[in-house]
Amino acid sequence: MAPQDETFDVIVVGGGAVGENAADRASRTGLSVALVEAALVGGECSYWACMPSKALLRPGTVLAAARAVPGAASAVDGGVDASAAFARRDEVASQWDDAGQVSWVESVGITLVRGAARFTGPRCLTVAGDDGERALVARHAVIVATGSVATVPEVLRGVEPWTSRDATSSHQVPARLAVVGGGVVGVEMATVYADLGSAVTMLVRGDRLLPAAEPFAGEAVRDALVALGVTIRFGTEVTSAVRDDDGVHLTTAWGVLHADEVLVAAGRHARTADLGLEAIDLAPGAPLHVDDALQVEAAGGWLFAVGDVTGRTGTTHQGKYDARVAGDVVAARFGDDDAMREAESGAEPWSRYRATADEASVPQVVFSRPEVAWVGHTESSARDAGIDVRAVDYDLGNLAGASVLAPDYQGHARLVLDDARGTVVGATFVGPEVAELLHAATVAVVGQVPLARLWHAVPSYPTLSEVWLRFGETAGL
Amino acid sequence: MAPQDETFDVIVVGGGAVGENAADRASRTGLSVALVEAALVGGECSYWACMPSKALLRPGTVLAAARAVPGAASAVDGGVDASAAFARRDEVASQWDDAGQVSWVESVGITLVRGAARFTGPRCLTVAGDDGERALVARHAVIVATGSVATVPEVLRGVEPWTSRDATSSHQVPARLAVVGGGVVGVEMATVYADLGSAVTMLVRGDRLLPAAEPFAGEAVRDALVALGVTIRFGTEVTSAVRDDDGVHLTTAWGVLHADEVLVAAGRHARTADLGLEAIDLAPGAPLHVDDALQVEAAGGWLFAVGDVTGRTGTTHQGKYDARVAGDVVAARFGDDDAMREAESGAEPWSRYRATADEASVPQVVFSRPEVAWVGHTESSARDAGIDVRAVDYDLGNLAGASVLAPDYQGHARLVLDDARGTVVGATFVGPEVAELLHAATVAVVGQVPLARLWHAVPSYPTLSEVWLRFGETAGL
Repeated sequence: MAPQDETFDVIVVGGGAVGENAADRASRTGLSVALVEAALVGGECSYWACMPSKALLRPGTVLAAARAVPGAASAVDGGVDASAAFARRDEVASQWDDAGQVSWVESVGITLVRGAARFTGPRCLTVAGDDGERALVARHAVIVATGSVATVPEVLRGVEPWTSRDATSSHQVPARLAVVGGGVVGVEMATVYADLGSAVTMLVRGDRLLPAAEPFAGEAVRDALVALGVTIRFGTEVTSAVRDDDGVHLTTAWGVLHADEVLVAAGRHARTADLGLEAIDLAPGAPLHVDDALQVEAAGGWLFAVGDVTGRTGTTHQGKYDARVAGDVVAARFGDDDAMREAESGAEPWSRYRATADEASVPQVVFSRPEVAWVGHTESSARDAGIDVRAVDYDLGNLAGASVLAPDYQGHARLVLDDARGTVVGATFVGPEVAELLHAATVAVVGQVPLARLWHAVPSYPTLSEVWLRFGETAGL
Repeated sequence: MAPQDETFDVIVVGGGAVGENAADRASRTGLSVALVEAALVGGECSYWACMPSKALLRPGTVLAAARAVPGAASAVDGGVDASAAFARRDEVASQWDDAGQVSWVESVGITLVRGAARFTGPRCLTVAGDDGERALVARHAVIVATGSVATVPEVLRGVEPWTSRDATSSHQVPARLAVVGGGVVGVEMATVYADLGSAVTMLVRGDRLLPAAEPFAGEAVRDALVALGVTIRFGTEVTSAVRDDDGVHLTTAWGVLHADEVLVAAGRHARTADLGLEAIDLAPGAPLHVDDALQVEAAGGWLFAVGDVTGRTGTTHQGKYDARVAGDVVAARFGDDDAMREAESGAEPWSRYRATADEASVPQVVFSRPEVAWVGHTESSARDAGIDVRAVDYDLGNLAGASVLAPDYQGHARLVLDDARGTVVGATFVGPEVAELLHAATVAVVGQVPLARLWHAVPSYPTLSEVWLRFGETAGL
């Protein structure tokens, strides 16, 4: 070890929300922790994903809600004000300034190291920053939380497409926007730019939107996007792309699509290409596979990974969950709290030291219009997992609470029941204002609360949560 | 028994939502059921309470939400359109026509008997309807579901005040409205009429609004009502009242309040005054006290009561819960399904045959601005009940999800934890769009899910439900 090496008990590589959480919890038993970040502390979610996306979606959502209500509709004149929406988005993204995050990191006693980290060997890293290169050594553990990057198909690389980063941080509204992909980013950004006045065309390789969700979810979003003026081409791949002074020209089997910008929203991959993983006998570019303690199984006891980089989860909230678990595991194993160490060494599923919820109760909310929210299994994923399930469906428009939100409220919900155990293993909600309905389902799934007990959880009238009563009735209670 | 007597297995007295539910479930083992209703089938909630109230509140709520969002605010010009709001309310209240409800009743095989019922003896009633008087006999059971009526203080009886029925069904906006009472009806109707342009003054006997809720809830609603232009006089009783051509004049210790209408929202009482309870040795005017099987304890095995008339619950949703339990108990005890009979006779708490949730997990949502939602215990009610609790507080404005809803989102939440058991015994949420947050808390309370397990119920980012993560962190997890 050269004399200039800096040693910490724990090094967290990647200072997004996930890395911050891991670092914070790892430091709780007194371990010294360094947090290495090459860009902005706070990460993708704060500056180029969840937060700016939701900020951009909100004005259109709330205006649509008002337009749907007699007594309010006549007070709404006009659509989303792009410059005000962008200005608010800039605030939500903290003007892409991480000073607030940095002061939080420092306030909890974590050492921030700015720069790009590369492994040089087990527990050893170099960090290339503006002030040159620093060598860091982790006495006990390294936690990798470098997240993911948008996957840009080869055919589009030459036209400098937008990724989610550009779409969420843009101050321009392209007159014509092509969106390649029909997942969460695709539908949210198609909604945003349609609200802002773009002529949006979605090019979707498969035959539906939001393919990870129940089919009815993607269908509802598809219909709503079409009603909003978005053109959707399913079964479509871009075979060539060129950019010239007139914009981008995308050749597909349907013909050539001319657009001013093209957003690539065709998936993400683990950000491990430039981490020097070869120095620790792991494959650069591949996800870091972990166990329920978030330990990288192939590396022995010192390496952990959390968040998108693991390929295990793909959302900020679930990454933060893993980060809490990993941080607690590291604090327990390497800190000097005997009770924690003992608890961790004997940890069972659902212990705070095991990320048990990653298995079957991961929630996802899409802030499209209608909103889509699901947790755990879909009917088909449950069957694929060998669970004998029954789907319980309910049309949300039949709820008294829905009729109050809007005369023509349309929505749908499905509960997926493990028939043998009588418990909920999944739920999906689609409709305006369903996002906050999800957590009750998540609690039911994680708490393994039998439907017979949920029968006693009375929803307040007239809320949308009354769907739980209808689930019970429909299931035969 | 005179020859003209009509005999049914079960008679349900009162055809509101609660009575309908009880009748429906009681009929499931093949028992013949009569449903007696003197006014509109569907009851208070459908025509003169929850539903029209929420319909009247919705336009102001959604416009306020839009005005709070940069990018949307500039598209909102003007306030609630009273005539459109009233017209929509009229639709929600089915134009006070119960044809839809009646056809549902008939479709499930229940016999509707229109008229006012009076007991003439055990299991015997007369019903005075437009076509004269009918004598009904219940072979097995009578379920009383006559609900409650607004309590009008003596001092106000001479001025023909509005009750909740008038306030929710009015087609007029009084220029000056006095509201007597600071409970749910008072705050909801003060909000509605302030939105519609009335100058509203609330006269509240106590020192806070929503006295059944956590104190911070009433404080938030108070501040918001004042900001909306409502005048609130606490510690105020009306000592005399007169009506003349200039309206109503209410004398209080503060002086005389002049108003065009006065709404009395000072509580409700069981509707039992005219039921002929003296014929079955019960006290007219008093609530019908019941056990967890909804059986009127003082009457032997044939009399049940559900909903407001019991004094046990005061909301539609909890009354319907009791109705489901009572209907199931009646169907089991008197029907010919041996398995049901056996299950009911050995029923334990949380069985479908016992209304266990009435004890400690009753939810309430107030659709004021901000919304207020609570379930189970408040901190003080838990202490009064002898539970060793810890309150876990969180400022909802700190949530990422709140900042997306509105830059200046204000809200607060409290979890009440049973420290010994590690479970949730109550929760309160105050803020815009918190209504649907409640059900997760209800599931946690009813499911007795330990906080350590709730730690694994990951809220989706950035929703308001992330408060559950903050609850866990604040509680020390």
